Amino acid sequence: MSDRREFRDLATPDAAREAIDSLDLAPEPETVPLTDARGRVLAERIDAAIDVPGFDRASMDGYAVRARDTFGADEVDPAELDLVGAVHAGSTPDVTVEPGTCAEISTGAVMPDGADAVVMVERTDEMRSGDSNEAGGGDGDRPDRIAVRTAVAPGDHVMSAGADIAAGARALGPGTRLTPREIGLLSALGIDEVPVEGKPRVGIVSTGDELVRPGDDLDPSRGEIYDVNSTTIAAGVEEAGGEPIFYPHAGDDYDEMERLLRRAADECDLVLSSGSTSASAVDVIYRVIEARGDLLLHGVAVKPGKPMLIGRLDRSESDADDGGSDDESRSGESAYVGLPGYPVSALTIFRTFVAPAIREAARQPEPATATIEGRMGVAERYGEGRLRLMPVGLLDLNPDSGSPPLVYPVDKGSGATTSLVEADGVVTVAPDTEVLDAGETVSVQLFSPDVRPPSLLGVGEDDPALNRLLDRLDAPRYLPIGSREGLRRLRDGVPDVAVVAGTTDREVDSVELGGWSREWGIVVPEGNPADVDGLASLVDCDLRFVNRSTDSGLRRSLDDALDDLATRRSVSRSELTDRIDGYAHTVRAFESPVRRVIAGDADAGLGLRETAERLGCAFVALGDQPVTIHAAPDRTDRDAVRALASVLENFGADGSGEDDPIDTLAGYSRNDETGS
Amino acid sequence: MSDRREFRDLATPDAAREAIDSLDLAPEPETVPLTDARGRVLAERIDAAIDVPGFDRASMDGYAVRARDTFGADEVDPAELDLVGAVHAGSTPDVTVEPGTCAEISTGAVMPDGADAVVMVERTDEMRSGDSNEAGGGDGDRPDRIAVRTAVAPGDHVMSAGADIAAGARALGPGTRLTPREIGLLSALGIDEVPVEGKPRVGIVSTGDELVRPGDDLDPSRGEIYDVNSTTIAAGVEEAGGEPIFYPHAGDDYDEMERLLRRAADECDLVLSSGSTSASAVDVIYRVIEARGDLLLHGVAVKPGKPMLIGRLDRSESDADDGGSDDESRSGESAYVGLPGYPVSALTIFRTFVAPAIREAARQPEPATATIEGRMGVAERYGEGRLRLMPVGLLDLNPDSGSPPLVYPVDKGSGATTSLVEADGVVTVAPDTEVLDAGETVSVQLFSPDVRPPSLLGVGEDDPALNRLLDRLDAPRYLPIGSREGLRRLRDGVPDVAVVAGTTDREVDSVELGGWSREWGIVVPEGNPADVDGLASLVDCDLRFVNRSTDSGLRRSLDDALDDLATRRSVSRSELTDRIDGYAHTVRAFESPVRRVIAGDADAGLGLRETAERLGCAFVALGDQPVTIHAAPDRTDRDAVRALASVLENFGADGSGEDDPIDTLAGYSRNDETGS
Repeated sequence: MSDRREFRDLATPDAAREAIDSLDLAPEPETVPLTDARGRVLAERIDAAIDVPGFDRASMDGYAVRARDTFGADEVDPAELDLVGAVHAGSTPDVTVEPGTCAEISTGAVMPDGADAVVMVERTDEMRSGDSNEAGGGDGDRPDRIAVRTAVAPGDHVMSAGADIAAGARALGPGTRLTPREIGLLSALGIDEVPVEGKPRVGIVSTGDELVRPGDDLDPSRGEIYDVNSTTIAAGVEEAGGEPIFYPHAGDDYDEMERLLRRAADECDLVLSSGSTSASAVDVIYRVIEARGDLLLHGVAVKPGKPMLIGRLDRSESDADDGGSDDESRSGESAYVGLPGYPVSALTIFRTFVAPAIREAARQPEPATATIEGRMGVAERYGEGRLRLMPVGLLDLNPDSGSPPLVYPVDKGSGATTSLVEADGVVTVAPDTEVLDAGETVSVQLFSPDVRPPSLLGVGEDDPALNRLLDRLDAPRYLPIGSREGLRRLRDGVPDVAVVAGTTDREVDSVELGGWSREWGIVVPEGNPADVDGLASLVDCDLRFVNRSTDSGLRRSLDDALDDLATRRSVSRSELTDRIDGYAHTVRAFESPVRRVIAGDADAGLGLRETAERLGCAFVALGDQPVTIHAAPDRTDRDAVRALASVLENFGADGSGEDDPIDTLAGYSRNDETGS
Repeated sequence: MSDRREFRDLATPDAAREAIDSLDLAPEPETVPLTDARGRVLAERIDAAIDVPGFDRASMDGYAVRARDTFGADEVDPAELDLVGAVHAGSTPDVTVEPGTCAEISTGAVMPDGADAVVMVERTDEMRSGDSNEAGGGDGDRPDRIAVRTAVAPGDHVMSAGADIAAGARALGPGTRLTPREIGLLSALGIDEVPVEGKPRVGIVSTGDELVRPGDDLDPSRGEIYDVNSTTIAAGVEEAGGEPIFYPHAGDDYDEMERLLRRAADECDLVLSSGSTSASAVDVIYRVIEARGDLLLHGVAVKPGKPMLIGRLDRSESDADDGGSDDESRSGESAYVGLPGYPVSALTIFRTFVAPAIREAARQPEPATATIEGRMGVAERYGEGRLRLMPVGLLDLNPDSGSPPLVYPVDKGSGATTSLVEADGVVTVAPDTEVLDAGETVSVQLFSPDVRPPSLLGVGEDDPALNRLLDRLDAPRYLPIGSREGLRRLRDGVPDVAVVAGTTDREVDSVELGGWSREWGIVVPEGNPADVDGLASLVDCDLRFVNRSTDSGLRRSLDDALDDLATRRSVSRSELTDRIDGYAHTVRAFESPVRRVIAGDADAGLGLRETAERLGCAFVALGDQPVTIHAAPDRTDRDAVRALASVLENFGADGSGEDDPIDTLAGYSRNDETGS
């Protein structure tokens, strides 16, 4: 521990921004095919090199005429012109319109020589030889004269060459972001590749011996975890307009880290290291940057994110000589930022400090929807005297009203990856703010421009039927915090609904929307080797048990059953629980005890018949417990709550077989069928 | 013209929406690597298959202890524990923490057997043998005892296995759009590929013999134009979440069109035809759909877009048998929509009717920014009794105030591709609306969610120095409509500035921001073969001339010079102009007359010295004319107008050589140097 680096003299967030601004991470412009150019930014002005259209063009179907020949013509006294030919789009006119003549012409065709206007076909009649007054008949002969029933002026229904855009005119300016519309104009100019600002190449180096790439095998007994930051930050880099490049994991070895960082520096405009929570890995990086680059800043006074590094990394000098670099204008340094190790911290620091720099280097504008106003749903105290980037969740109570969404803090500890999806953005809390009041308006920086607040916020018990019910709703968010904590939060006014299993002491004003019943009991290995036959076996046999926490409705039902047993035996409940090995060993979710049993870490676990049967265990039933959905009284009129009630009404009620969630889950029944 | 198909019995827009809703264009779900999953939509619920973390994990650097051993410890009376080993992140613990002992532990490491809590390193001191009271010194020996200066409870600074997310818990629901945050959670679960909704495959068939693909050679004499719709619509398809597939151009031949449409139907979920303005090409498509599919609707009562087709196309029956299809669940039909030929019409109809269907098939949500409120800058009359999708431009007068942008109609005729970039979106005007008043609030559907209104709207003369000046501004829009029309629009209150060349009769209240001077005259072929030596040559020699329109400041200066010449000769101006062959032949932009001269279509043209010299022509000077930028008096305080004034102040004033736009353009000078 003697190498531990202390973060004294933390830099201010403004100093961190300045340090990042001082880095050069702008790539060279590049040329891309027009079909790949959507969302890119023009690197230079595009002037039209051709006239569009490139010729005087008929803009109506009709007849090309000399306008002077039609002067004075009207419905009563049409002008009669000899029809001398036809011009179609995509062909060269082979006629000349002399005085007194006309030529049939299609929209988009080249105006023939001599003609200076088009008469719409609707204002003409076809005539045949010897037929001076009547529309053409059906004998199949081509008409040879045309009666024009209107006068036209020169230029009528003709788009002259260059009238849309003329050669030499400024078509699009530098810095223009290319949407389908600009791509359309470039197509009209015949341009099939365009000079655009380059995408900054961002190398992502994840550090820490404990990290395993998603998809590879994980050995939890060695403390391995999947690498979250690399893919998360890579997606953030893409979103900001950069091109992420993954590098292999680096361990804590100095030489390996140096080799890796220099390779990344050679190939990238910016190198991000991220992933390790290990002080020794951070320390190795620190030493490499100091030796092989320039450390501008170490540690920022912001929560989360203190352990942030900003600097530059030297590129290999030999690289330009041996032709290994494909970009000779590259400077001798790459920008470097070290992100915190915890995923929510890393993403927060990335989007606050790094994404703006990537966008600026790519010349991409700040997304329009990146910041929204919201209203605090609960009060939040804070008093650390350090700028805080507080992760928050959103709930859009009135999606169509334009009123601000409800904002609530999400604080599960920054090590939790689930905070990533339970938070929608960040509220910046100034160092001198001690409390944010409920109802106060706050500005939320969304994690991504495409974040959409959930339609419904539910909290409470975890349950497999509930999981299926949620699938039928549009964009719900559900926090499985247990029945007891769920009711507490419902009372505090943030969620729409709480899901409660079994009985509860808590009195919370709510509206019951409905529910179902589930069979609970003791899960034991296949074949029930210890011959468990009820609650008494847990107390009286030497079994390793796995319990659920007191927030869970399952635990409450177990404790109620233990109370009954204690009463029957005339002892206190704690006398019984003291004899259950593992009564205090609690795990988090409805499947967790079963998995401990399967893994051989326990002989029995608290669980559901559904889970036991699905995972191939034996099950000793102890009872049925109701699962009930409670809505906050002031939320029952919300569309999302009505939608939930409507799904609930039909849920498990059709008995129609394989799609029916109640009928297909072992031990489940509709509420009205249950005992208790 | 006898095959012309009339659009009688136009369907209502609602009927068109219903017809499109009745089409099935949803693709099969697919599995993609997590690194490519950003922006995709989950096709099914993802439950956690593992506990995260997968082990009881230290969440601080410090010492793993049995909590009971620390009970009662404080700063005054620390608990002393034997140090029995160390556990680092990424390795399997090789120690057991027995009562009275502890093990050094790093953040993220596996809790060793026996330990149930972690003491932060900050609350401990290292001790060495025989040293019962003092922090460890520098002799390099490992400490063998640790003094713990605080009591901890079981579970303190430990994240238990599954505490973040437990195996079996619902991680993400179907329909979830994957942003960096969801990608982070999926990474934590070790998932490296995900089931997502497919992208609808959208075949794009462009029709019309006159269309040439951008990048290929164009023959304007044959009436060829570049194909705008294919790339524009393809970009729109991508933006809506579909995958565009280009097919070769089809001409007007029935068999070729049938072959092409059936191939596209076999390979795609939706076929869009687009591109032709030719009635005969539309007619061929109509016949193919009727013969080889099902035409649901032909013609919609909407402006633009009457000639819209909606239907289905049969797939080849043999395809599934010969193994040519890689998707056996494909139904026997593909959806089909025929778009109008003009680019703005095609894009408008696409985004109004087709993009929502593609988004729904891809399960992509409607973009949050796709519709904004604006305020009409001018009144607009309309009275055709047909739903109108009116293309409009936007100007964000107060970008940071949140007040609605100014909205103005863009109506250059739907054949103009420049409308694509001059319009930002569409206002839907109900059939019974006769007038939209200035100041009225309207809802603008943006062409793309990433449309951003320009910061500055300028109108007026076209000028090469102005083009360079605009490059120095952030997101300006400039409409080169000529000096005269520019002043008229400035008076009407929409643009910020008008650029005026030469003198003008129009009295418009404005603030002059500055400008420059440019030399104008007669452009003739290299070497001046006709020995043009002034204005008199145009009148007295037999030269084919090319003029600019009366809106142009260049034309105004020419006419003033002709007036002078007429006065000197004691004739009227029209007596002179009647003798100039081509005086009435006007072209659009400052380069256009010069290009006619170069092409041999004219012997002399009205133009600038700058253009003549740059394009290698000879030049006969007739004078200098000022180019002045006029700001609307109520806009001079806008940031964008100030930025323009500031750029203008330094423009051409530094005389610093190659980057200086005034010094490098032939015939240009700063205003204070010019004569006239």
